[in-house]
Amino acid sequence: MNQQFGRVALIGIGLIGSSLAHVIRREKIASHIAGYAKSAETRKAAVQLGLVDSIHDTAAVAVKDADLVIMCVPVGACGEIAKGISAALKPDAILTDVGSVKAAVVRDVLPHVPQGVHFIPGHPIAGTEQSGPASGFADLFVKRWCILTPLPTSDLAAVTRLEKFWHACGSEVELMTPEHHDLVLAITSHLPHLIAYNTVATAADLEEVTDSEVIKYSAGGFRDFTRIAASDPTMWRDVFLNNREAVLEMLGRFSEDLSALQRAIRWGDGETLFNLFTRAREVRRNIIAAGQETAAPDFGRDPKHR
Amino acid sequence: MNQQFGRVALIGIGLIGSSLAHVIRREKIASHIAGYAKSAETRKAAVQLGLVDSIHDTAAVAVKDADLVIMCVPVGACGEIAKGISAALKPDAILTDVGSVKAAVVRDVLPHVPQGVHFIPGHPIAGTEQSGPASGFADLFVKRWCILTPLPTSDLAAVTRLEKFWHACGSEVELMTPEHHDLVLAITSHLPHLIAYNTVATAADLEEVTDSEVIKYSAGGFRDFTRIAASDPTMWRDVFLNNREAVLEMLGRFSEDLSALQRAIRWGDGETLFNLFTRAREVRRNIIAAGQETAAPDFGRDPKHR
Repeated sequence: MNQQFGRVALIGIGLIGSSLAHVIRREKIASHIAGYAKSAETRKAAVQLGLVDSIHDTAAVAVKDADLVIMCVPVGACGEIAKGISAALKPDAILTDVGSVKAAVVRDVLPHVPQGVHFIPGHPIAGTEQSGPASGFADLFVKRWCILTPLPTSDLAAVTRLEKFWHACGSEVELMTPEHHDLVLAITSHLPHLIAYNTVATAADLEEVTDSEVIKYSAGGFRDFTRIAASDPTMWRDVFLNNREAVLEMLGRFSEDLSALQRAIRWGDGETLFNLFTRAREVRRNIIAAGQETAAPDFGRDPKHR
Repeated sequence: MNQQFGRVALIGIGLIGSSLAHVIRREKIASHIAGYAKSAETRKAAVQLGLVDSIHDTAAVAVKDADLVIMCVPVGACGEIAKGISAALKPDAILTDVGSVKAAVVRDVLPHVPQGVHFIPGHPIAGTEQSGPASGFADLFVKRWCILTPLPTSDLAAVTRLEKFWHACGSEVELMTPEHHDLVLAITSHLPHLIAYNTVATAADLEEVTDSEVIKYSAGGFRDFTRIAASDPTMWRDVFLNNREAVLEMLGRFSEDLSALQRAIRWGDGETLFNLFTRAREVRRNIIAAGQETAAPDFGRDPKHR
C-alpha cells in the first residue's frame, strides 16, 4: 500500500508537473490528482494525456480538499498563486513548490499561507531541456536529489511526510536553508545556464562566421551548450530575477577566473592551462562515481551523433 | 572494392587514431595499417586491440612506403613529427593531420614537407571526451563534417583522394582556408571548451559551497559542462597556445555579451533576459534539423541519469 495522500493538486502542468502526475499514478501515491493550468491548451493536453483525474481553470478550485498542493510554475508566479489559493487551502494540508530559487519563493508565498497549513519549499534537481505537459515522464526524479528548505517553524511530521513523497518518486532528499540552497544552485545550475545562453548568443551574433557554419560544426563542443540554452525562457528569466545576489556573486568569480585563463593564453602559459585542464577531469569522474551522470562517452548520445 | 590506399600510417593512436584504424579496417580502405605511438603502453594496446598491422617506435619507420600519412597527435607535436618523418616520406604520398587548429599546423609542418609530397591539413569535427587507444570506434566520423584546408599549391587530385577517404569514413567534407577554419572553430569548439574548463574550476574553488554539494546537485546543468572539460588536457593546452588570436577575439565578444547580461540581471530587466533566452532555443532546433544533434531529451542520456 503506497498511498500517502488523498487528493494531490498540481498547480501548473509543465515538465515537472506532468512528470509528477506520471509517477504519482504509477506508484499510486494519491487517490486523486487535481490539475490546474493557466492555458486552455495545457488543460486539454493534460486530460488527453490522462495526467489528471480532474482539471480546473482556477487554482483555488483545484486545491480544495487537497492534502498536498504542489506549485509547479515559474518562480515568479508562486506569490500570485499562493494569494489565489490561500483561502481555499485545507487545514493541515502540505503546500510545497518545485522552483529553482527558494528564498524568493519564501518571501512571496509565506505571507499568504494560512495558519495550520504546512508550507515546505522544495526543489527537485531534475529536468530536461523540454517543456510542456507532453514532456514529462515517470522516471524523471529517479536517483536525483530533491532539496527541501523547511522554515524554522515547519512541522516536523509534515516535513517527514513530504520527504516520504519524494522518496516514493525515486528521489533522495536533503534539507538545507533557502539561502544556502540559492547559493549552491547558483553555481551548479544558474551560472551554467547563464553561460550557456550567453555563448549561444555570442555565436549567433558573429559576422565573420555564418550561422550555418556555427550549426554545421557545432559537434566540436558548442552543441552541448545549446541543450541547456533550450530550456524554458520564462522559467529561467524568473530564476535570474529572483536569485540575483547569488548569481552576480558567482558571475563575478567566474569572470575573475576567466581573466586569469585569458592572461595565460595571451602569454602562452601552457603549464597553467594544462594544470587547470587536468583538475577539471577529476570533477567529472567524481560526478559519475556519485551516480549523477552516465559513464558512457558523449552522454551516451546516439552513435550517429557522436 | 573500397581499397583506396596501400599502406596507411597512423602517427599517434589516441581517440582519433584508433577510430581511424577501426573504420579503415571495417571499410577495407587500406591494405596495411602501420602505427606509431610515443609510449610503449599505447603501442602494446594498439597491438592487443588489433588496431594495426605493424607497430613502430619511430614515426619515420612507420611512414616508409605509406601512401597516406595521418598525424593524429596534439597540434603542438605536429612540427616535430613532420621534421622526423620528412626524409622517409614516399614521393606522391599524402600527408595530413587531424588537429583542431590549422594555421599553426601549416606554419610548423610546411617547412618539413619534401617536394612531391602532398600536404593537406585536415580536421574531423568529431570526438568524445575520452582519450587513448581503447576509446576509438568505427562510427566516430559518421555524419560529422571533416574540414580540409588545402594550400594554394595543393594538388587537386590529391585533395580529391583525401576527400574520398573521409567520405569512406562516413564524413562530409568541406574546404576552407586555414585562417577561416581557426575562426570558425574558435567559436564552435575552442571557446566552449575554455568556458567549460573555467566553470568547472570556479565551482571547484568555492569556499561557501562544498565540492560534494557541487557533485550532488550537478544535474541542474553543471554536469553538462564537465563532459567537454574532461577532454585531453595536452590536446587542449596546444589548441589554446596555437589559436591564440582567434580565441582571444571570441573571448572578448563573449565577455562583452556577458557584461550586458549581468547588467540585465542587476537591474531586473526581465524582457532582455526573456528575449535572449528565446533566441537561444532556435539555435538548438537548427542544429537538430541539420542532423548534428540528437532530438532526444537530455542528449538521450540513460533515463536513470535524467
